[in-house]
Amino acid sequence: MNRNDNGVLVVGSVAYDSVTTPVGAVSDVIGGSATYFSLSVSHFASVSLVAVVGSDFLQEHLDLFSDKGVETSGLEKVEGDSFRWSGLYSTEDVNERTTLNTDLNVFSEFSPDLTDIHNSKPYLFLANIQPHLQLSVLDQMKVRPRMVALDTMNFWIEGNISELKEALSKADVAFMDEHEIRSFSAEVNITRAAQKVMDIGPSTVVVKRGEHGVLMFQRDSIFSAPAFPVKKVVDPTGAGDSFAGGFVGYIAATQDFSQAGFRRAVILGSVMGSLAVESFGPDRVVSAGSTNIEKRFNILYEMTRFEPLGDGQSLPGISHF
Amino acid sequence: MNRNDNGVLVVGSVAYDSVTTPVGAVSDVIGGSATYFSLSVSHFASVSLVAVVGSDFLQEHLDLFSDKGVETSGLEKVEGDSFRWSGLYSTEDVNERTTLNTDLNVFSEFSPDLTDIHNSKPYLFLANIQPHLQLSVLDQMKVRPRMVALDTMNFWIEGNISELKEALSKADVAFMDEHEIRSFSAEVNITRAAQKVMDIGPSTVVVKRGEHGVLMFQRDSIFSAPAFPVKKVVDPTGAGDSFAGGFVGYIAATQDFSQAGFRRAVILGSVMGSLAVESFGPDRVVSAGSTNIEKRFNILYEMTRFEPLGDGQSLPGISHF
Repeated sequence: MNRNDNGVLVVGSVAYDSVTTPVGAVSDVIGGSATYFSLSVSHFASVSLVAVVGSDFLQEHLDLFSDKGVETSGLEKVEGDSFRWSGLYSTEDVNERTTLNTDLNVFSEFSPDLTDIHNSKPYLFLANIQPHLQLSVLDQMKVRPRMVALDTMNFWIEGNISELKEALSKADVAFMDEHEIRSFSAEVNITRAAQKVMDIGPSTVVVKRGEHGVLMFQRDSIFSAPAFPVKKVVDPTGAGDSFAGGFVGYIAATQDFSQAGFRRAVILGSVMGSLAVESFGPDRVVSAGSTNIEKRFNILYEMTRFEPLGDGQSLPGISHF
Repeated sequence: MNRNDNGVLVVGSVAYDSVTTPVGAVSDVIGGSATYFSLSVSHFASVSLVAVVGSDFLQEHLDLFSDKGVETSGLEKVEGDSFRWSGLYSTEDVNERTTLNTDLNVFSEFSPDLTDIHNSKPYLFLANIQPHLQLSVLDQMKVRPRMVALDTMNFWIEGNISELKEALSKADVAFMDEHEIRSFSAEVNITRAAQKVMDIGPSTVVVKRGEHGVLMFQRDSIFSAPAFPVKKVVDPTGAGDSFAGGFVGYIAATQDFSQAGFRRAVILGSVMGSLAVESFGPDRVVSAGSTNIEKRFNILYEMTRFEPLGDGQSLPGISHF
């Protein structure tokens, strides 16, 4: 089995979201983890999507994917309604989200079936679907991907811990948010929590903290990246998946597995996440140009610079004792 | 009036704290904003303390200050009990603090009276005392300090907003935590909230976010610094004042008012805050050596490094459109 590209495969959800935020409300905008992820990757690398939608899925949204070069032969269309999610973000703290309704609809029968187009992709992102589906996808891969990245969410942590652990044991990169990793590891201290996840398998654990940025843990290093200072958060939905898209897309594009490469991948993830929150739905992720992406990268670079104290130079004023 | 030193003056509280955290509980440990601040500054610059304690104040705690070179001629001892505070930190989230009891005692009559030892100090830190006392201290300064830094807390934001605004209008640096700045500015977005505070006067606004690090806003720049990854948080009390001590102490020691100097000051603040949380009371702030402080500075440096994309180099894989 030969690999003929550096493409990315994502298996996840494509949904219609109805969202209320302090800024406004929208109904039935295109959403879902695989949607945000693939549109974000499309700025960096080729990407194939495996998901399921219902007979209500609109042509304009198929066009959205094809316009961005997302390969959708694995987007199965079946009888019934598409996955629908509705949620509310607090006016007090836009990071606080309440799920109002989850109608799995056709997604409840989702059973990803990989074809030869998918099963040798070198970069695999398992979005937050049921852990047993994540395991099924891994089983179907004809060649072990160069990088398996996995996302999860509290819902699966609570109900499917042993399957989730098995999926994690086969992943290289785990994306979790602060609450998820604390809940999963039963450990309040994030550094210790990340160590517990690394002990299961992933050599890289990326802890997403919303407006507080990202911590990436690897065997011998911690990398801290700020969130891009967004002037107006319109809708946080999809920020995490857009982050993952920037991260995985950059690694796929560069094939740079060095620590320096992973750190830049985190920054590009932050950039893509910051774009996601600036519109309802994935509009900003879709419309962003490379100039804007590079500009935000450079702003994050400037935001984090400081000079070392200097070789052998001691702190001024410090009494040595 | 000539300035004969680069010393720091702090006006704030010296108290006995009783604290319960997930790690344990202690009673009547030395605390208060001026205590943590001055002990933290003592690693960098000379510092004088103006505060009030009761007749119960122990000689060993006077000795603690003098051992670290903190000048205490302004530590007034009066009849009655010292300020006592007791609080509880959540096991769920150690950043969540509940005040169980506040006995102001002699602190309720505190009226700072500056002598010639204090009133020409070039660096002034107004800890979180009543805004009218902060204003009284400013009025007593014979020479406008080179830098006035001011801390505040929700308690004064809620009850004394106009006096607080007046004090802020006379400050160069404002320290606020996330909750405080949101409450003060009625603005959820931290960047906009910081802009509102800068509009009142301070050219530098430092937003403390506990384990999520610090954001420093200046006219034309934002600086993001991570929290030092502490292995075990014992007691968060005093972290903010120890942070301020590292920040102001470093500026006083270097007299470096450049953006680069302020950024390093933030990092040293983070280091001192990280030491504060590793013990009940200020033990770790007191016992830290310069080697440990420099080591933590360097760890924060390594934690934040990433390489730019390069001059004129575009992102690999990005389609330009």
